[in-house]
Amino acid sequence: MFIAMNRFKIKRGSEEAFETLWKNRESHLEDTPGFVEFKLLRGPADDEGGFTLYASHTTWKTRVDFENWTKSLQFREAHKNAGKNDVQYLGHPQLETFEAVKGTLLANAV
Amino acid sequence: MFIAMNRFKIKRGSEEAFETLWKNRESHLEDTPGFVEFKLLRGPADDEGGFTLYASHTTWKTRVDFENWTKSLQFREAHKNAGKNDVQYLGHPQLETFEAVKGTLLANAV
Repeated sequence: MFIAMNRFKIKRGSEEAFETLWKNRESHLEDTPGFVEFKLLRGPADDEGGFTLYASHTTWKTRVDFENWTKSLQFREAHKNAGKNDVQYLGHPQLETFEAVKGTLLANAV
Repeated sequence: MFIAMNRFKIKRGSEEAFETLWKNRESHLEDTPGFVEFKLLRGPADDEGGFTLYASHTTWKTRVDFENWTKSLQFREAHKNAGKNDVQYLGHPQLETFEAVKGTLLANAV
């Protein structure tokens, strides 16, 4: 299992616009080979820094599935409007990729 | 859905001992109310910094389920040997907590 995590610092006041952007986005991830799960997560607000931390997690069967997706038409379509919106970011998104070492999922809890 | 993410910087050479620690740990998470999923993830190696980044993700139905777990006997049991091992950490683990904003899970992909 492979997880691509992107971290976003969103300036205070831009949170709603940022969430709306993701809620309305057509990602077509469900049709992409190797796709397992997507989550957009709202993290802690940094009062001194003036931002709220968000993380997107995209889970794939393998790293190759993720890399194939980043080269696909679906990926370009999903990202073509990035930047063309009113969301104010603090710096660039920070991508980190992970391989699962150990995992437990309660099948009846999802 | 609520996610508690802990980030660990593990000094180069300690990775195997760190993973073994987690693989052999009796967490009893499966018996804990509100538990959904646990993952230990291996992230990128930082060659200049001399460490490998790891993240543990624990998913709960609600924040209250997570808070109850941190006060439970199971939590104390699972953490009683933290520190008593040969793993070399760079700094303290960094805890971040997140609420799900949007999610998609392919039920047949897990």
